[in-house]
Amino acid sequence: MEIIVQKYGGTSVANITKIKKIAQNIKKLINKKISPVVIVSAMAGETDKLLKLINSISLLPNEREYDQIISTGEKVSSSLLVMALNEINVKALSLDASKAKILTDNIHGKASIVSIGTKEIKKYLSKGFVVVIPGFQGINSNNDVTTLGRGGSDLSAVAIAGALKAERCELLKDDVDGIYTTDPRLYKKAKKINYISYQEMLEMSSLGSKVLQSKAVEMANQLNTKIYVKSTFSNKKKGTIVMDEKKIPLREKKVVSGITHDLKQAKISIIGIKDTPGIASKIFKPISESGIIVDMIVQNISTEGETDLTFTIPKEDLNKTFKILKENKSKLYYYKLIKDEKIALISIVGDGMKTHTGIATRMFTSLAKSKINISMISTSEIKISCVINKNLCKKAISSLHKEFGLG
Amino acid sequence: MEIIVQKYGGTSVANITKIKKIAQNIKKLINKKISPVVIVSAMAGETDKLLKLINSISLLPNEREYDQIISTGEKVSSSLLVMALNEINVKALSLDASKAKILTDNIHGKASIVSIGTKEIKKYLSKGFVVVIPGFQGINSNNDVTTLGRGGSDLSAVAIAGALKAERCELLKDDVDGIYTTDPRLYKKAKKINYISYQEMLEMSSLGSKVLQSKAVEMANQLNTKIYVKSTFSNKKKGTIVMDEKKIPLREKKVVSGITHDLKQAKISIIGIKDTPGIASKIFKPISESGIIVDMIVQNISTEGETDLTFTIPKEDLNKTFKILKENKSKLYYYKLIKDEKIALISIVGDGMKTHTGIATRMFTSLAKSKINISMISTSEIKISCVINKNLCKKAISSLHKEFGLG
Repeated sequence: MEIIVQKYGGTSVANITKIKKIAQNIKKLINKKISPVVIVSAMAGETDKLLKLINSISLLPNEREYDQIISTGEKVSSSLLVMALNEINVKALSLDASKAKILTDNIHGKASIVSIGTKEIKKYLSKGFVVVIPGFQGINSNNDVTTLGRGGSDLSAVAIAGALKAERCELLKDDVDGIYTTDPRLYKKAKKINYISYQEMLEMSSLGSKVLQSKAVEMANQLNTKIYVKSTFSNKKKGTIVMDEKKIPLREKKVVSGITHDLKQAKISIIGIKDTPGIASKIFKPISESGIIVDMIVQNISTEGETDLTFTIPKEDLNKTFKILKENKSKLYYYKLIKDEKIALISIVGDGMKTHTGIATRMFTSLAKSKINISMISTSEIKISCVINKNLCKKAISSLHKEFGLG
Repeated sequence: MEIIVQKYGGTSVANITKIKKIAQNIKKLINKKISPVVIVSAMAGETDKLLKLINSISLLPNEREYDQIISTGEKVSSSLLVMALNEINVKALSLDASKAKILTDNIHGKASIVSIGTKEIKKYLSKGFVVVIPGFQGINSNNDVTTLGRGGSDLSAVAIAGALKAERCELLKDDVDGIYTTDPRLYKKAKKINYISYQEMLEMSSLGSKVLQSKAVEMANQLNTKIYVKSTFSNKKKGTIVMDEKKIPLREKKVVSGITHDLKQAKISIIGIKDTPGIASKIFKPISESGIIVDMIVQNISTEGETDLTFTIPKEDLNKTFKILKENKSKLYYYKLIKDEKIALISIVGDGMKTHTGIATRMFTSLAKSKINISMISTSEIKISCVINKNLCKKAISSLHKEFGLG
């Protein structure tokens, strides 16, 4: 029994016409003797409609009831899909989180999957049923519904595919047909990537690529589940396969796989601060205690016992961070603060960096040739990120795309 | 612990403003040291919206999935009500059919309640929680959601009140504030009834009064649960109490309690049929086998071995019935068929008929005085029904309302 898990997002089930098309998609798998397990999101707009109702009652709603409400949308779309399958003579049934035994912890609204019981799912698969499961939700030990947070349906799909040891987990998208070397809306010559490793995908997700959520990629990596990112409605186009680096065919490997950009960061510089031990902790302790995530930090070489320190934070936290630093001025003894919202974080990602040298130099040279100034640099094993002027973002992408032969 | 079960219908929870008002209603009970169990319907329009989605996929949808879809609306409104209660500092939680242990049989879409486990509900009541339960649904032995059919939330409320031995079951309505002597839309002098017996209410429901469903009244009778029919939003007005006939205060008792009308019936006459044994069964067997419900039947006195036979059926089944009779003409040997859609079924209902005589005569005389011809008559222990011309319906109601002193 070859099992394939397919996950259809909200725009893919946005209306009855689309749901009927998906049913046809699934029938094709049946005809190939494949056992499909299908995870669906709520019809596009439904969850937002429910959130609006909730917010007009309470800004701090009861979390258990919150989950009970926002989990209903996926139940509706699951059962609608079963009906559409029945209409074209495909045996199918829906199993909710309680029946499919998707056990989570008790953190309502942001639950983590603890275990998945496969017995019930396999029972129906072996009887020739398509099993449809509402995404984004599980149950806790008290049998209360929990939800998994944003992008939770991808997570459901990967976890279920892993538990079932499925051949692969297909994440079908209505708006994109795979992972691209860079954002095609910013750079038209962006190319679809055939294969990408879990680590590369993780870096790309955390650096601004919005196609997959980090959590889902992490879980796929843990469970060694192959992810196919594909278009929902054009079956002909090959998508992108996210898998173990070691198993990717050699001919597909490039030093740099993709370029991401992130325009949601802001930069703060603290000028003229005393360069004494413990100063960094004094600065960042109150910031992190406020729940603000600091990404890059760069400290200048000290002159005459003074130095400058620059760091990036999410743009939405800029004012809050500024306020914290001002409140602590007496403790920090700095000269002044400078903020900059007009920055872009440009990153190149690739497993090849582990074995190839000189990649950073090529990146810096390429940007320099395009007259793009770099104000901050950060590196990890498989990525290099630079902070540049926001207005030069497109130009930087184009320059790097050519430099690393991604076209 | 005095328990009161309240049920709020779809128009009573149609929007957030109304839900907040209901929360205030419930808080008043808490302040009186009453333990409320609240049953809610789906927000008005929600169930129809879901039905529309279902019907655009399938005309004969999978019943299990159908129930899973149309049961979601009540879950949403239950949890919204809990949130609204929390906002005004009232402890509350929702218990779905599985948690509240509302066990039904396995007839999806029209399930009957088999048993209700009260342990979980009572546990939370004793801790001072308001328990909110989605109406209209239960679970079968397989733990699949089932729904109870039209008016199912009233049924849920009565069954839960009975199981909890609640003080009473309040059915709160947004559009009416009680049971009336006759339909106030047709006759402005209609008066609200303070007390009505289960049997009277059952007759009135089956004879065209739409305020309560027969099933809910039957169950209240079985469980001896007092029903209060009241207005949701005007607390000052007293509603109607439906209860055991023997316990109704004597001064409240009238010979006739109410007058109903039903305009949804049609009449068929079979003229010139052979008056032989078994002829009625030959006529009605194929009709009832088609699922058509025949209500009244009148057979004329036979002359020269021939007779006429008239009966009523729901107007929507008129053509179907006519077709069946025509197909069977060779077996039935009748002369001709006459149909009449312009009829009204007028009924008077009252426990007093059991002990008072001459009620029928008073009815016929009153109608005769108003020059209304009666074409069919049917009686039971506590009701008398007459078929008259549809256009004279209002006149008949007015005439009977005066005759029996209901004004």
